[in-house]
Amino acid sequence: METLFLQWLDTQLSPHPRVQLGVGDDAAILNADPAPTVVCVDTVVEGTDFVLADTALNLVGRKALAINLSDLAAMGSLPVAALGSLIVPPSFELDDCKQVYGGLLQLASEHGLALVGGDFTVANSPLTLTVTLLGDPSPGGCWRRSGADPGDHLLVTGTLGGSILGHHLSFEPRLPESAWLSQHASVKACIDVTDGLLLSCHLLAEANQLAIQLDTDAIPISPVAVQQSANSDRTPLQHALLDGEDFELLFAVDPAEANDLLAQQPFSCGLSRLATFEAGSGVFGMNSQGQSTPLARDGYIHGS
Amino acid sequence: METLFLQWLDTQLSPHPRVQLGVGDDAAILNADPAPTVVCVDTVVEGTDFVLADTALNLVGRKALAINLSDLAAMGSLPVAALGSLIVPPSFELDDCKQVYGGLLQLASEHGLALVGGDFTVANSPLTLTVTLLGDPSPGGCWRRSGADPGDHLLVTGTLGGSILGHHLSFEPRLPESAWLSQHASVKACIDVTDGLLLSCHLLAEANQLAIQLDTDAIPISPVAVQQSANSDRTPLQHALLDGEDFELLFAVDPAEANDLLAQQPFSCGLSRLATFEAGSGVFGMNSQGQSTPLARDGYIHGS
Repeated sequence: METLFLQWLDTQLSPHPRVQLGVGDDAAILNADPAPTVVCVDTVVEGTDFVLADTALNLVGRKALAINLSDLAAMGSLPVAALGSLIVPPSFELDDCKQVYGGLLQLASEHGLALVGGDFTVANSPLTLTVTLLGDPSPGGCWRRSGADPGDHLLVTGTLGGSILGHHLSFEPRLPESAWLSQHASVKACIDVTDGLLLSCHLLAEANQLAIQLDTDAIPISPVAVQQSANSDRTPLQHALLDGEDFELLFAVDPAEANDLLAQQPFSCGLSRLATFEAGSGVFGMNSQGQSTPLARDGYIHGS
Repeated sequence: METLFLQWLDTQLSPHPRVQLGVGDDAAILNADPAPTVVCVDTVVEGTDFVLADTALNLVGRKALAINLSDLAAMGSLPVAALGSLIVPPSFELDDCKQVYGGLLQLASEHGLALVGGDFTVANSPLTLTVTLLGDPSPGGCWRRSGADPGDHLLVTGTLGGSILGHHLSFEPRLPESAWLSQHASVKACIDVTDGLLLSCHLLAEANQLAIQLDTDAIPISPVAVQQSANSDRTPLQHALLDGEDFELLFAVDPAEANDLLAQQPFSCGLSRLATFEAGSGVFGMNSQGQSTPLARDGYIHGS
C-alpha cells in the first residue's frame, strides 16, 4: 500500500518556490539563502521495526536516529539537529523512557548533533519513536537519487544481507564515508539501502530512467547472510539482494572514478562495484557466465 | 510522567553552537546565516488526541498540521514546509490514508506551505500522525516564552474552554493574528494555549521567573464551555481555565501596547486582557472583589 499511497501523494503536490527537492528522495532540500536546509523524518514502531522483548531500549532510540542519519549520509548532508516524538504505552516507566532517549542521545553525541525538541505521548500504542533530522549540505552540494549517466558504475559500501540478526539495531550510519566521498569523489547519484539491495537498484534505475546491469557474483554478501541462509529457504545471495535494513550507501560514479576508488579502498567497511548503468529500464542480474536475467522489483518493502 | 521525563531530558542536553533555542519552548531555533530555521514536531494518536469513531479522517490530518501551525504562530514564525510520518493499522485502506492526508494537504495549501517528505508504516498500532514543521522567523524575529517584565499585561486571542466539543479538530491556527502582531506590535513573550489556560499561565510565569495575577472575571469564556458546563461538574470558568486544546495565543506586551491593542481590537476572533505580570512566582486568580488566591498548576496535562 505504501507504493500506491506515495504515488497518489505525488499527484497531490505542486511546485513550491522554497522546495528544491521534495517528496521522493532520502531527504528534502529547502531553499534558503545562502545554504539550503536538508530535512528528513523516519519512525520506528514496536512489532514492525523491532521486537520489544528482544531489544534493549537504548537500541530503539539509537535506531530511530541512525536510520535518519543514514538518509542524510545518502544525501551527502551533514547532520545538525534532531527532534524526537516518543509514544509510550501506559506500562512504560520513566526509566524506560530514559533508556530509549539515552540511546538516541548517545548516537547524537557521537555525531555532534543537538536534540532540539519533540513531543511525548502516553497512549494505548506500541512503543513508537519518530525522529526528524535537519542537516547542512556538504560544501560540494547534495546528492540525489538521480544524476547518473549510461556507463556509470554503481558502488556499495560494506556488505549486504542478514541485517535482522542484529545489524539493523547496531549499524553505524555511513556518515564518515559520505563526508569522505563529498570531499574526495564526484558522486553522481546516491541512495541508502533500506529495503533491500534489489529494491534500491530499482529505485535508482527509475530515478535515472536507466537500466542497471547487476553483476550478481560481485555483490558483497555479509557473513551473517551466510549464517542466516543456513536456517532459511533463501541463499546467501538472495539474502543480500532482498533483506532490508542494510543501511549501506549505494552510489553512482563514472568509470574512472570507480576504478580510483576501488584501488584506493578508503573505507574500513569495504567498497565494492556491483553494477553498470545502461540505456533502458529495469534491473538485470548478470552472472560470471555472462547470462543476464531481469530481476523483478520484489525486494522486501518495509511495513507494507 | 511527561514533566519528569522532560526535566530529565533537560539535564542531558548541552549547549550547541547551532542551537539558538532548544527543547522547552513552542519550537526550536537553529542558527543559520543570515536567517535561522524554526522547527517543531507534534504527534496525534488515536484514542488520545481524537476518537476515531467520531472523527472524519481528513480532520485527523488537519489537526496534526494545525497543532504545529499553532506552535509556529506562538513563535512569531512563518511556516514554510512540513513532513508527515503516518502509521496506519492493517485494517486501513488506501482511501483512508488519502483522506487523512487530504485534510493535511488542504490546510497546508491554505497557509501556502509545502509537504516535502515523510514516512509511512503499516503496523498493529492506533492511527498516528506525526508532523514536523519548518518555518522562517518573521522579520521582527521570533518570540519566546520568556521576555516579559513586571507590569506587562497578558493578552489572549479568541475564547477559551470546551474545545472537546469540536474546536480541537476544526480550530484555525492563529497565524494571521501572529503575523499581524509581528508587524504592528511588540510582543515580549508568547505561548499557545495547548493544555489549558492555567497551565499555560504557569509555564509563562516559570519561563519569566515572575508571578501572574489573573483577572478571572476577564477570562473570555467560549460559548461551548458554557454549553459543556451544563453536562459536567465544572463551571464555565473552570472549563476555560482547565480544558486543553484551545490553541489561542497568550502573549505579553507592555501596558501602553496592551491598551492600544485592546482599543484597536484587530482580530475577528477577539482579543482580551487577562492578567498582569508581577515580581514573584506562581499564578494567582483575582476576582472583581479584589480577592487573590493561588491557582495550582493542575491544568489538563495532555497524554499523561
